[in-house]
Amino acid sequence: VPRLSEDALIATYFASFAGAGALNLGDDAALMKPPSGEELVLTKDMLVAGVHFFADDSPDAIARKALRVNLSDLAAKAATPRGFLLGLGLPADWQDAWMKAFAEGLKDEAMRFGIELLGGDTVHVPGPLTLSITAIGSVPDGCMVPRAGAQDGDLIFVSGTIGDAALGLRLRQAEAADAPWIGKLDDKQQDHLATRYLLPEPRLALRDALREHARCAMDISDGLAGDLAKMLRLADLKAEVEVEKIPLSSAARSAFAAADVLQTILCGGDDYEILCTVAPDRAAAFQAAAETAGVGVHQIGICQAGGGLPRFRTAQGRLWIFETGSFQHF
Amino acid sequence: VPRLSEDALIATYFASFAGAGALNLGDDAALMKPPSGEELVLTKDMLVAGVHFFADDSPDAIARKALRVNLSDLAAKAATPRGFLLGLGLPADWQDAWMKAFAEGLKDEAMRFGIELLGGDTVHVPGPLTLSITAIGSVPDGCMVPRAGAQDGDLIFVSGTIGDAALGLRLRQAEAADAPWIGKLDDKQQDHLATRYLLPEPRLALRDALREHARCAMDISDGLAGDLAKMLRLADLKAEVEVEKIPLSSAARSAFAAADVLQTILCGGDDYEILCTVAPDRAAAFQAAAETAGVGVHQIGICQAGGGLPRFRTAQGRLWIFETGSFQHF
Repeated sequence: VPRLSEDALIATYFASFAGAGALNLGDDAALMKPPSGEELVLTKDMLVAGVHFFADDSPDAIARKALRVNLSDLAAKAATPRGFLLGLGLPADWQDAWMKAFAEGLKDEAMRFGIELLGGDTVHVPGPLTLSITAIGSVPDGCMVPRAGAQDGDLIFVSGTIGDAALGLRLRQAEAADAPWIGKLDDKQQDHLATRYLLPEPRLALRDALREHARCAMDISDGLAGDLAKMLRLADLKAEVEVEKIPLSSAARSAFAAADVLQTILCGGDDYEILCTVAPDRAAAFQAAAETAGVGVHQIGICQAGGGLPRFRTAQGRLWIFETGSFQHF
Repeated sequence: VPRLSEDALIATYFASFAGAGALNLGDDAALMKPPSGEELVLTKDMLVAGVHFFADDSPDAIARKALRVNLSDLAAKAATPRGFLLGLGLPADWQDAWMKAFAEGLKDEAMRFGIELLGGDTVHVPGPLTLSITAIGSVPDGCMVPRAGAQDGDLIFVSGTIGDAALGLRLRQAEAADAPWIGKLDDKQQDHLATRYLLPEPRLALRDALREHARCAMDISDGLAGDLAKMLRLADLKAEVEVEKIPLSSAARSAFAAADVLQTILCGGDDYEILCTVAPDRAAAFQAAAETAGVGVHQIGICQAGGGLPRFRTAQGRLWIFETGSFQHF
């Protein structure tokens, strides 16, 4: 079967959702200008089959996740998505049907989140499928919510629920015998965890709440414990987190009740929820704004003067400190 | 040997040449705004060991080439380089000494070309070293030189010399017995070809000449024949090129005199020279501006009404048409 040239591949699968600045994906480069009074926010995430997703995940799901993890970075900066460039490193045995489903998933996500395909590159890799997306958003000048800048006394919030994706990954990797908690979950709970691993939800809806009220924010991609440690380190602060305040899904609660999965929940990664700090006098307004946006946020702890790793205290008074902290995809 | 975390790797090797918008490479995203009255030009090129470079090339050379092929795209658009994001997919066996040399090469190039590191991502790949760079430049509003738009009667120009890199690649791949022309080249000529493959020269110096005088432009990355065909197809034109007008280095001339390497020269790729068209009444001014910029440009043919593949005519009256056209890295 003769393979499409790169140009034909682009025209066949990707041109239909290219933005105006993409110049029909037929130029050396794309054009972009932020709206007047705004600046651009740029982020880049690479995803590799066998590392960040399973090679046999559906191409639709792979495309959606690749774009969403980048959108999650934009969400954490309170940015409005504008455009993206796609680097596609394809193994020699790629199939047209795979590409069609991949491109359709990507197009659907791009339209859903209002972000235009601007360009990219397609290459052959003598290795696993490798995706590299550069996503570009914008914020009004000076309004990007930074990761640095937490202050002593700030309240620590997270969006959504924590640990689902990490449990979902264990669910896929583990034999049930290795992880007896799996048997305690009903099908719906198992589905919930699996879906949370497969398809993160970028919290773009929190944009206005973050811009208005958050002191600093990041997305949780490498586990709450490690990512919180990173945020605190930038501000030379420590923190105490109350484990029972960490929002858990019904599935994660069932797993937590059945087995010692706290480390998976706190260090497992792939949450793609927002972690942020808010001054105490803004907390109520932040929660109200998030509720208006339809995203649950929960206060889980407080920033304190002095450095050091965050301390996670359970209802039973046990203290957890995670030395290695974050899950290393890398 | 314990490996550096991603954060430590970034701090150790890359933070020293991060730009202001990189936020110390410690945030989820970077900030960028084009200068007033300018728009951004974005390009992305992926490079994979064993496909786009040799895995045992020096890390310094790999870094320089990866940045330069992206800068070549910006040069073709007459853009001024501003910043770049680096995606680094590392095999498990990467070494600190390799990374140090890679980062030093990248830093040196970034400073040479005035482009700031803004951010990126570092991941593990269970495959060959994979680099993905997104480079960002800027042009005054509306001044990007497009690939489309050539007109009947436009003169076709190329910068520098053509075919050196493709011959340099054959030099590295071939046994001397397979390519007897290699024996006809002296050491200096062989070095020239090898270097042209290893280290392309982005023609950023042509910026003003292109902005002022070129109708359309692209960089030659997949071979002159195929890339010219792409440019003509966008304008529904054909062209006739006089082979003896194509600028060749002394090394390429020697190879051409000794063996039938015309197809390698015209279809081999990796030139990273500028291909552009210029209206006849601007040709003298374009050549003068390029000369002032210190870059040789040569007129090699003329655009003609009607579509079809470009025709390459030799001094002996032989006509070459390359059906498959361009070298497919992909």
